[in-house]
Amino acid sequence: MRAVTFQQPGVVSVEERPQPELVDPGDAIVRIEATGVCGSDLHIYHGRVKIEPGFTIGHEYVGTVVATGDAVGTVAVGDRVLGCFHTACGTCFHCLRGEYHRCVRSRTFGHGATLGSLQGTQAEMALVPHADMVLRAVPDGMRPEVALFAGDVMGTGFHAVDSSGLRPGDVAAVLGLGPVGLCAVQAAKACGAAHVIAIDTVEERLGIAASFGAEPVHLGEQDPRAAARAATEGRGVDVCIDAVGDPKALESAIRMTRDCGSIQCIGVYAERAEIHLGLMWLKAITLRGGQANVIAHVDRVLAMMSAGVLDPTPLVTHHMPLEKAAEAYAIYDRREALKIVLTP
Amino acid sequence: MRAVTFQQPGVVSVEERPQPELVDPGDAIVRIEATGVCGSDLHIYHGRVKIEPGFTIGHEYVGTVVATGDAVGTVAVGDRVLGCFHTACGTCFHCLRGEYHRCVRSRTFGHGATLGSLQGTQAEMALVPHADMVLRAVPDGMRPEVALFAGDVMGTGFHAVDSSGLRPGDVAAVLGLGPVGLCAVQAAKACGAAHVIAIDTVEERLGIAASFGAEPVHLGEQDPRAAARAATEGRGVDVCIDAVGDPKALESAIRMTRDCGSIQCIGVYAERAEIHLGLMWLKAITLRGGQANVIAHVDRVLAMMSAGVLDPTPLVTHHMPLEKAAEAYAIYDRREALKIVLTP
Amino acid sequence: MRAVTFQQPGVVSVEERPQPELVDPGDAIVRIEATGVCGSDLHIYHGRVKIEPGFTIGHEYVGTVVATGDAVGTVAVGDRVLGCFHTACGTCFHCLRGEYHRCVRSRTFGHGATLGSLQGTQAEMALVPHADMVLRAVPDGMRPEVALFAGDVMGTGFHAVDSSGLRPGDVAAVLGLGPVGLCAVQAAKACGAAHVIAIDTVEERLGIAASFGAEPVHLGEQDPRAAARAATEGRGVDVCIDAVGDPKALESAIRMTRDCGSIQCIGVYAERAEIHLGLMWLKAITLRGGQANVIAHVDRVLAMMSAGVLDPTPLVTHHMPLEKAAEAYAIYDRREALKIVLTP
Amino acid sequence: MRAVTFQQPGVVSVEERPQPELVDPGDAIVRIEATGVCGSDLHIYHGRVKIEPGFTIGHEYVGTVVATGDAVGTVAVGDRVLGCFHTACGTCFHCLRGEYHRCVRSRTFGHGATLGSLQGTQAEMALVPHADMVLRAVPDGMRPEVALFAGDVMGTGFHAVDSSGLRPGDVAAVLGLGPVGLCAVQAAKACGAAHVIAIDTVEERLGIAASFGAEPVHLGEQDPRAAARAATEGRGVDVCIDAVGDPKALESAIRMTRDCGSIQCIGVYAERAEIHLGLMWLKAITLRGGQANVIAHVDRVLAMMSAGVLDPTPLVTHHMPLEKAAEAYAIYDRREALKIVLTP
Repeated sequence: MRAVTFQQPGVVSVEERPQPELVDPGDAIVRIEATGVCGSDLHIYHGRVKIEPGFTIGHEYVGTVVATGDAVGTVAVGDRVLGCFHTACGTCFHCLRGEYHRCVRSRTFGHGATLGSLQGTQAEMALVPHADMVLRAVPDGMRPEVALFAGDVMGTGFHAVDSSGLRPGDVAAVLGLGPVGLCAVQAAKACGAAHVIAIDTVEERLGIAASFGAEPVHLGEQDPRAAARAATEGRGVDVCIDAVGDPKALESAIRMTRDCGSIQCIGVYAERAEIHLGLMWLKAITLRGGQANVIAHVDRVLAMMSAGVLDPTPLVTHHMPLEKAAEAYAIYDRREALKIVLTP
Repeated sequence: MRAVTFQQPGVVSVEERPQPELVDPGDAIVRIEATGVCGSDLHIYHGRVKIEPGFTIGHEYVGTVVATGDAVGTVAVGDRVLGCFHTACGTCFHCLRGEYHRCVRSRTFGHGATLGSLQGTQAEMALVPHADMVLRAVPDGMRPEVALFAGDVMGTGFHAVDSSGLRPGDVAAVLGLGPVGLCAVQAAKACGAAHVIAIDTVEERLGIAASFGAEPVHLGEQDPRAAARAATEGRGVDVCIDAVGDPKALESAIRMTRDCGSIQCIGVYAERAEIHLGLMWLKAITLRGGQANVIAHVDRVLAMMSAGVLDPTPLVTHHMPLEKAAEAYAIYDRREALKIVLTP
Repeated sequence: MRAVTFQQPGVVSVEERPQPELVDPGDAIVRIEATGVCGSDLHIYHGRVKIEPGFTIGHEYVGTVVATGDAVGTVAVGDRVLGCFHTACGTCFHCLRGEYHRCVRSRTFGHGATLGSLQGTQAEMALVPHADMVLRAVPDGMRPEVALFAGDVMGTGFHAVDSSGLRPGDVAAVLGLGPVGLCAVQAAKACGAAHVIAIDTVEERLGIAASFGAEPVHLGEQDPRAAARAATEGRGVDVCIDAVGDPKALESAIRMTRDCGSIQCIGVYAERAEIHLGLMWLKAITLRGGQANVIAHVDRVLAMMSAGVLDPTPLVTHHMPLEKAAEAYAIYDRREALKIVLTP
Repeated sequence: MRAVTFQQPGVVSVEERPQPELVDPGDAIVRIEATGVCGSDLHIYHGRVKIEPGFTIGHEYVGTVVATGDAVGTVAVGDRVLGCFHTACGTCFHCLRGEYHRCVRSRTFGHGATLGSLQGTQAEMALVPHADMVLRAVPDGMRPEVALFAGDVMGTGFHAVDSSGLRPGDVAAVLGLGPVGLCAVQAAKACGAAHVIAIDTVEERLGIAASFGAEPVHLGEQDPRAAARAATEGRGVDVCIDAVGDPKALESAIRMTRDCGSIQCIGVYAERAEIHLGLMWLKAITLRGGQANVIAHVDRVLAMMSAGVLDPTPLVTHHMPLEKAAEAYAIYDRREALKIVLTP
């Protein structure tokens, strides 16, 4: 079968790869119909996340189940499904607490040996372990390029909001309007935020956020703290979502958030950093972070997408055949796309 | 001053009454600009809730502060305010837990000696004890007939949803589409419900619910349980709001709700009743009820109304001068109105 | 192998039965070391819960794993384990929400065709489906007759407290001091209750409750409501656990519980009943019920039992060989025992 | 009257001061019976927290109400009371959310102009604004030197545990065994922790923690991470309470805490600091901090102290007359005392 593989930083190829085979009783095999290119793929492309040359990448996918192991009960051959970007066992300490994103047996698609040696989904076929946990039926009438958001980008935006402690009537801010940030804007509005301040430097992204009902704030031209104060009688926002993953963003978040408010870092932090711990302490802010728990949320996200309450359609900027993956990655790397959907 | 007073079942009058005076340091006096007639007033009108003849009724109000006691800090003379339907002290056991609706010193406007002997707001002026807890500034640009919903009917609809445990992506049902039920429909959608099933027998009310984004179900012509199953792959709704207050409604709610779901009785129950306790137990349903905690929610409700996320405008069917209160009560009693706003 | 089977109301036998065999990849087989007789077994014994004659009964057990299917990952052959009284799949709608007690594929040991046709554990061997979900290692040094409480009676007492919403410093009441009620007393104290009122008519059980730190109240001789008021400055208890399952107990619970308090019915309700819905509504009480979610709690319960914070030892009144099961059931039926542990 | 006043870093005096007088309707005046010296007083003593020379210090107190303003309803002249270390209005944005520690009108006793110019309680008399919020009756039979912990040190230890998200059956660690850390150890056990790891370098404090049921870990001689792993099958603790307030402690907390666990910084942070944000993010740890919300907890803490579930008695190492305040501060400064109680 054909598959997109990492070769070296800046180089991906479409190569012939062996078809996947069932290994464990909980496995399924999915014939891929659509698969997305995501910001996380770019970390691999740039060599910041190191994986083996020749490893198949990609982790957003919609397709049809073509085989299942004996222990699979929820999906069956012939079902059209979407999947989550990682697997979870359902029975470990963390899974029993609903912390599927920290499952001790978790494997992430297309991230090499570091994250479980599970081949990616930018391919004609993919092996899906723990299929009952990972796959969901595509709701009737939902287009594949929409459905594939549920298990990754929209699931992540929803997670950011859901785990932030946002309550209906709150004022939220979202720092960074990449695909995840934009999904977080939409999720915040859908979950009852009275007002969402959306902050970035790219006009186009600010425009999309505005079309989702947010107040756009251009970082170079306007003052996010002033916007936060103006929307809250001077207190600061109830909830701030940092979708950037940079200490400067976190500094801004700490300053924009009200006493006893919360900050959710959905943007990735990987290093030590100096933060204004004193100000955070004085304001009694709660700080949370980490990868999204998409398995916990995927049913809710799908229900809201089916109802049109969440709708990632405006983020799909490019459709391309799988064979043009190299071009797709180059476009994405130049930040000319929000979401590229590849079709095998 | 002029005030609407209860005389005997079926008879209210507009009479001359002494102007209120400040009594306690936390009091304010409000010159009423608009005041609503509510379903609770009808209980008094019908004599089901017994109050003293000559007592001023009414508990929904918007107006201007004309006097404040020494301990009032949040509102000042000249402020345009809306109020909650009852008072709370802010310092008792219940208030310290945020259970303002069960404040041990709580008094309800316009309900006679039974609920604290606090004269009502269907009058030119009203005394408002614990003004810091009870009053809020009317947001800029909000019309008075909209603002008065925040402290009563919309606050109650929001409470029903907020305390039901509804989570974004859930499927909810609302039984009974009076003003509170319709506000609950709107609040459920605003808080992230993927789907709301709205159940009543009155076409007009079903139409309003549909315009709020709900699926209308006509109780005589359609089967609510079938609608609940259809929307949930057979499980039943996650949350059911009983805005009727009748054991038949509760029976229906128990049957429509999924295992581990919850039922919120915002409709009033005052008697013993036989319920299907066995089925509730088997399904592990949580049952909650009681008067709304509007003081806890009023800021959120106002923020959502300001943002247009909640909007009771379609419920305001009648505007009348205070002097025509007798006619207003007759119209409301014939169920020809959803909300009548009186202007002194 | 030898197994205790139901024959007809009032008659159980020890019979020869075929050894269990692995069926599904998630199965394990456990050689039973100790197995309890429980109040639920008595419902079968009395014929109130109908099961097939010849069906093996029992659902409390400790033993050693002797075989596992290919998909079992958490336990291995040779492990000493205890088990929960029912199975759960880990992947259905309810399991993904942590509602393992309402798992759509749940099967209860020893309850016949009604609850999944899963042979019981009062036998030399037992088949355990979904072993990763159901079994846990026996902590070092924990005696088998103690360990078997974790997956049933103590798990149920803990569930009653944990899902009641009890917070540290609260005052709780427990109605009914059978084994579950006594475990709930202990759990309430362990979870921070400042005061627990324990109510029954049996002196011996009141004495055990007192030894667990509760205030014993003899139902015939003392007034539970007065005790509740005395402990709470007249308000009523914060949390009331009904471990009886009778409308009279629920009536008493409603009267003893404070405004905005909660009632947890861990005692079984199976019928319609008249309750004082009006009083419950007026007091804004939350009512919860249903079978215990022991799988969600078993790790916590084991940790607390290991630490000695929970200790069911005083409840183990009888040790008997499995062959004397008929005598054991007769003793239990005469309410002469709190917990009988059978040894194959 | 006599009062302990700050003069300059390292110097406090007992001076004659004017008696306090009622100012606002919500005020009370309390004749002080016992007042504690606390670690926060030491910050003033050292000049790290700057206050005006001649300002009365102290914020832990028990006494008798001798005067009340017109709006005071909960306490009356003659009541024996204890108080919280700061005031709250009960009606602002934060108070309505139960965030009393961030009340916009909050004033802290004995901290000079920085925190509201409210004279301290190390004096014969003290003015207590918002008395209904701040004062509570001393439970029958509770000694004054015990009662004064409820509104400060034990309230803070309880807050650390309560807001950490600790659940019954969890494993907790407490870093730093000063009075607050030791109270947190006791509170963690009382709230259901199965195991508490208590970490310090002072043998005496480790001994007290052990007597409270914790596992003592000597920081210089043992490895806290190894202890955390040993108690949790290698995962790390569920909850870590940093009662130190130093980036090294926080680093240790991040390393000791399990994936999806939480860290509660009750120790004070006032500066920027470098932290291992990447590790925190990878582990999806929740970080909370800030001053304790003692008003929210004081009733619970008192109930648990009355029941003996919490008992600060072992922390009271010194009783001295108020006139010997200078000596008391010198002793406390040399870390020879855990709690010094002054008697006017």
